[in-house]
Amino acid sequence: MKRSRVISKRNSEKLWFDEMSMKEAKEHAKTGRVVILPIGSVEEHGDHLPLCTDSIQPEYVAVEVAKKTKCIIAPTIRYGVCNFTRNFPGTISIRFDSLRNIVYDILGELIRNGYTRILVLSGHADQAHMTALRLAAQVALERYEKEIKNDKPRIMVCSDYDFAYELKGKYFSEKDGHAGAIETSRVMSIRPDLVEKRGKGSYPDLPRFEIVSDAKSYFPTGAMGDPTKASAEKGKMINSYVIEHVAALVEELKR
Amino acid sequence: MKRSRVISKRNSEKLWFDEMSMKEAKEHAKTGRVVILPIGSVEEHGDHLPLCTDSIQPEYVAVEVAKKTKCIIAPTIRYGVCNFTRNFPGTISIRFDSLRNIVYDILGELIRNGYTRILVLSGHADQAHMTALRLAAQVALERYEKEIKNDKPRIMVCSDYDFAYELKGKYFSEKDGHAGAIETSRVMSIRPDLVEKRGKGSYPDLPRFEIVSDAKSYFPTGAMGDPTKASAEKGKMINSYVIEHVAALVEELKR
Amino acid sequence: MKRSRVISKRNSEKLWFDEMSMKEAKEHAKTGRVVILPIGSVEEHGDHLPLCTDSIQPEYVAVEVAKKTKCIIAPTIRYGVCNFTRNFPGTISIRFDSLRNIVYDILGELIRNGYTRILVLSGHADQAHMTALRLAAQVALERYEKEIKNDKPRIMVCSDYDFAYELKGKYFSEKDGHAGAIETSRVMSIRPDLVEKRGKGSYPDLPRFEIVSDAKSYFPTGAMGDPTKASAEKGKMINSYVIEHVAALVEELKR
Amino acid sequence: MKRSRVISKRNSEKLWFDEMSMKEAKEHAKTGRVVILPIGSVEEHGDHLPLCTDSIQPEYVAVEVAKKTKCIIAPTIRYGVCNFTRNFPGTISIRFDSLRNIVYDILGELIRNGYTRILVLSGHADQAHMTALRLAAQVALERYEKEIKNDKPRIMVCSDYDFAYELKGKYFSEKDGHAGAIETSRVMSIRPDLVEKRGKGSYPDLPRFEIVSDAKSYFPTGAMGDPTKASAEKGKMINSYVIEHVAALVEELKR
Amino acid sequence: MKRSRVISKRNSEKLWFDEMSMKEAKEHAKTGRVVILPIGSVEEHGDHLPLCTDSIQPEYVAVEVAKKTKCIIAPTIRYGVCNFTRNFPGTISIRFDSLRNIVYDILGELIRNGYTRILVLSGHADQAHMTALRLAAQVALERYEKEIKNDKPRIMVCSDYDFAYELKGKYFSEKDGHAGAIETSRVMSIRPDLVEKRGKGSYPDLPRFEIVSDAKSYFPTGAMGDPTKASAEKGKMINSYVIEHVAALVEELKR
Amino acid sequence: MKRSRVISKRNSEKLWFDEMSMKEAKEHAKTGRVVILPIGSVEEHGDHLPLCTDSIQPEYVAVEVAKKTKCIIAPTIRYGVCNFTRNFPGTISIRFDSLRNIVYDILGELIRNGYTRILVLSGHADQAHMTALRLAAQVALERYEKEIKNDKPRIMVCSDYDFAYELKGKYFSEKDGHAGAIETSRVMSIRPDLVEKRGKGSYPDLPRFEIVSDAKSYFPTGAMGDPTKASAEKGKMINSYVIEHVAALVEELKR
Repeated sequence: MKRSRVISKRNSEKLWFDEMSMKEAKEHAKTGRVVILPIGSVEEHGDHLPLCTDSIQPEYVAVEVAKKTKCIIAPTIRYGVCNFTRNFPGTISIRFDSLRNIVYDILGELIRNGYTRILVLSGHADQAHMTALRLAAQVALERYEKEIKNDKPRIMVCSDYDFAYELKGKYFSEKDGHAGAIETSRVMSIRPDLVEKRGKGSYPDLPRFEIVSDAKSYFPTGAMGDPTKASAEKGKMINSYVIEHVAALVEELKR
Repeated sequence: MKRSRVISKRNSEKLWFDEMSMKEAKEHAKTGRVVILPIGSVEEHGDHLPLCTDSIQPEYVAVEVAKKTKCIIAPTIRYGVCNFTRNFPGTISIRFDSLRNIVYDILGELIRNGYTRILVLSGHADQAHMTALRLAAQVALERYEKEIKNDKPRIMVCSDYDFAYELKGKYFSEKDGHAGAIETSRVMSIRPDLVEKRGKGSYPDLPRFEIVSDAKSYFPTGAMGDPTKASAEKGKMINSYVIEHVAALVEELKR
Repeated sequence: MKRSRVISKRNSEKLWFDEMSMKEAKEHAKTGRVVILPIGSVEEHGDHLPLCTDSIQPEYVAVEVAKKTKCIIAPTIRYGVCNFTRNFPGTISIRFDSLRNIVYDILGELIRNGYTRILVLSGHADQAHMTALRLAAQVALERYEKEIKNDKPRIMVCSDYDFAYELKGKYFSEKDGHAGAIETSRVMSIRPDLVEKRGKGSYPDLPRFEIVSDAKSYFPTGAMGDPTKASAEKGKMINSYVIEHVAALVEELKR
Repeated sequence: MKRSRVISKRNSEKLWFDEMSMKEAKEHAKTGRVVILPIGSVEEHGDHLPLCTDSIQPEYVAVEVAKKTKCIIAPTIRYGVCNFTRNFPGTISIRFDSLRNIVYDILGELIRNGYTRILVLSGHADQAHMTALRLAAQVALERYEKEIKNDKPRIMVCSDYDFAYELKGKYFSEKDGHAGAIETSRVMSIRPDLVEKRGKGSYPDLPRFEIVSDAKSYFPTGAMGDPTKASAEKGKMINSYVIEHVAALVEELKR
Repeated sequence: MKRSRVISKRNSEKLWFDEMSMKEAKEHAKTGRVVILPIGSVEEHGDHLPLCTDSIQPEYVAVEVAKKTKCIIAPTIRYGVCNFTRNFPGTISIRFDSLRNIVYDILGELIRNGYTRILVLSGHADQAHMTALRLAAQVALERYEKEIKNDKPRIMVCSDYDFAYELKGKYFSEKDGHAGAIETSRVMSIRPDLVEKRGKGSYPDLPRFEIVSDAKSYFPTGAMGDPTKASAEKGKMINSYVIEHVAALVEELKR
Repeated sequence: MKRSRVISKRNSEKLWFDEMSMKEAKEHAKTGRVVILPIGSVEEHGDHLPLCTDSIQPEYVAVEVAKKTKCIIAPTIRYGVCNFTRNFPGTISIRFDSLRNIVYDILGELIRNGYTRILVLSGHADQAHMTALRLAAQVALERYEKEIKNDKPRIMVCSDYDFAYELKGKYFSEKDGHAGAIETSRVMSIRPDLVEKRGKGSYPDLPRFEIVSDAKSYFPTGAMGDPTKASAEKGKMINSYVIEHVAALVEELKR
């Protein structure tokens, strides 16, 4: 079966910001100002998951949340900062400043358009990557709080792994991580056609404090955890959990 | 009918770079090194065309070219520099430097991965936007030509409008432009569900040399040309023309 | 006869901004606020034309326009962005950002001085070079429009080749270009002492989309067109045409 | 008598770098590699001296030195960093970084062209301005010393006031300074037509350590010293002194 | 009793890098290459702890570790990035880029001096602050790994709270945090004279995802935890624990 | 004898900004707004003086001035720009921009805290270093003058060598300089334990205009002057002189 890259259901309203026309963008700003900006990455996720793993997860969550909450989704930035895995095949890591600047610009333009409640939702949760997003949001907020008095902008920044990893311990190993059972399950639920043969799990010791330029020697499979423990069913459960929590954030932004 | 956002046909090979796994990305680099990097924008295109007009055109072209030539497609950057239309509703313009930097990073990482033949294909053809792409390519080229001796990188930068507008005069008004008959026809052929009611055409006089901050007063409909002259059939013809020429560039890069 | 570098005729008023004293600069701002800022380059123009070809043309035009319109001329920036010819002998190319920043600063300072109507006139017409000038103007305009309410600044950016090349087809080959018949004619009219022996013409095919680091292999003479078709008389005619059109822009800025 | 802006005498050799053709630039690099890069400013110099005072002095010196020593002169940058006088009428101050970057670019390009011995000669001697020039030179030197092994570049940076002020005490007041007797004399010797009526002298106390944003309240005339003590004859003597010392630097660079 | 700011015990060897002479710095590089670079902040820590709380902790740890391991200590940077508390009285927050750049420079210079094993030890553990340190280290490492082949530099980055918070749960509340019982205990042990009257504890709910510009409304006391549960004795125990673990990192760097 | 690094006497008031608590910082701003920000360097000072020579001098002066004038002292930045000595062992030079940016940030934050009268006091007097401090102050001043109308900030920037070298001629050689008799005397008075065996003096000829990358060949001892002429008693006299003059600046800032 041919599969679309991103499922864009469309009933009465468009889900994607950039599928609207100029006129729709203007009118919609008056009623539905919450926007989700999904951020992904192009990053190795072992030999079993696609490089777009961190992009399709927040896109999927955003689409489901948008259907529930009537918010709208800005086009995904499918490139992120991948410091730890930057030397693996397949990773396309952009610089910290590049991500910070493009996100800053987009936030400012959404606010200029009247979309003043924004959730930046990242599928990639690298510390530097998240810091870039938070700094972009902070500087945008400081600027536009001064310029826009009557409808102060509000911005949240989260990773869907802020929620997904809350399920560790209960259902998954505490040590599960990058490309492990949780992530593999989620992709099996979202895009099973992109999941390749899963190797056996491993829980390598990564350098805790040392800055290394060749992570591969510490992390040969490019995965942390046991993907054989993954299933589409588990993935569905995790995704539901994440969707529920992200939807709650959108509702809070509406207030 | 539900429609996919981007048609990602998949037979023996994956079309999208980030649908590959780490292992596939490494192996594929040895045989099929040409990559198309599509660049779009979120920009007003009148009340009849969607804001993603400049994104879906090069994505569509890239997919068709990839099917023909066995090249691969990097994830689209769906944000561009929209200086002239930056104050219209719907436009999300990023700064010149933001675009230049993210594209520079991506080119460098593709080259690091062994994908040393790259075509940057933009659906948006603003002069500053194209200059940002060309400067990114130039600086990347200068850097990696020094570092990679045995497989010198090659980069081309074009807009699909470099070809589409070659059909002016013969089939369309010489004055046709942004969101006009050619662009409307193309979107009617690619994503008819996103084309709204078309107003009557206009050919406003834009300031030739003056830098203006409110382009709307010169350009009230946000369109240049007569969208009522558009048709899906004409769009199909234009798209074929563009695909043929872009495919030729990819073939040239393979050599 | 020895010739001065730049002819600075002076009747009742000074032509050059920086030949005024502090007091004159202050008084003049009240009555004659239009300033031309000429931009040149140091760039190869074949073996027959001097490296200052792109500087002396807009300086000459600016002086003639200033005499006609009573505007004033800021000191020429004689360095530009020469991406295509950057590896030729003689070219001194500055970075995009260097040009953008210095022009931004100068525009801001002219405006602070009350010279709020500015024409940036470049003899060099490289796309990146022109984009740098336009971006500098755009950002300056956005900033000072907010700060100066009662006399909103106006800035135009053009190349004298925006006009000179309008004479192609009628009088010159459509393929005439850099250091060709038009440019050679103009320099023969302005500074004949700087024109060396002219070689025969050529119309090389330049790479349309590929970013190349060694343009010389495509463009061995450093010229596009047939300089033997040039004459001082033709140059005079072209210059008159350019001067007339640039003067019209200054008149429009006065309003 | 009408006077040219810059006297460009031309005997067997061209004095100005950009009056050469591509071919001449290439050939000349082999024999005469010393280049003077004059730096000026657009800055108030009281009501009696022109804003270009700091540009015409090093240009004049450079031309005379070039005639004596057969070195060549790059086009003057006629804009500088004028922190102290930045709020006076007439001053066009560029940012520290703008000056540093453009000079860095030019030095690099001169070296690329084989002109590896360079004297940066500034008529303006503001501390920040000179620091910008020195930093540009230092970073260029560090870079090109590594890249060019067989002909290590050498760069000197000076102001012609490093020499002119050595004549204080003997012939002029120790307190003479900006637009004072020495500077006025020099301009009277170089461009008498640009010297306006000279007011009486003053030696204001400037803030020694406090950073002030309105220098005018401390420095109402914009001059430090007594311009009535100036004469063209004295100016000629000072200029000879400066020319002799700058010529010696060029000779040292030739070794 | 008067107390010194920083206890600098000195037996046979100097503890602080900058107390050495040029000669000592050169000689010492051959034998004792491990350097600790302490990073602090000027940041509110409630009404009971001093603004230098994050500076004196890593300085104290560094001194004790240096005595044990014979490593040497570079001068502390006593300013950090304090995004969350940036609007409180007393906080002096520097920008992310400012911290990143100065640390990058210092790392590079230590390496140039032959001190190629470096531990960056921060008393402040804000996510953006730590990211700035890690990015500085990463870029320095990538650069100098290429330049220095025979003694590859190694850099670790940690906060002493990476260890101190390991004692939560066992001895302190899991919710203890900024200026809470652990931090207060440590300062009571290091600089009791700087601890003011301790108010009662609180565990405010901080926004988890929302970027806020007025943290004070969420966090009125500027503290997270119960400082009344602190004691100098507990502080001594925590400090010993941290010192032991940091010393182990230094030993690992020596290998 | 154990010696403290910095003598921080404390009577009724704290001397160091960061030894205050949040509450004290807020209250103190109302009454004692003058802050000294000491700037040092890590720089070779011959084989006889420590690398922290330029840090301990302004710290000592600041402490003594603070005791006299009841001003307060921000934490010292112990790193500076050392262009001339950057290739000597022991020197840790930071980039011009790094120093400028961190100082700009700190000035802005002090002003935000209500400490609007600031003296930046540098022990290192390199021209680029001082320019970085002055530019930081200038840009901060321009920004906050606009934002803070009722208590305009005032900033002074000086080096303690602006005063110490006024004693040349009368008591010391006119040629005394870096690490010479004056500087050695001062350190002998402040930290005699850090003064090593003094070699004989020398007065090398340094390049006046040439930018050099290996200063050591011109300046083998790393000192300019005769350290054998130094004494603690002389140092005490010089320090008293500097303290008196710096205290006067603080009093002027209080007005």
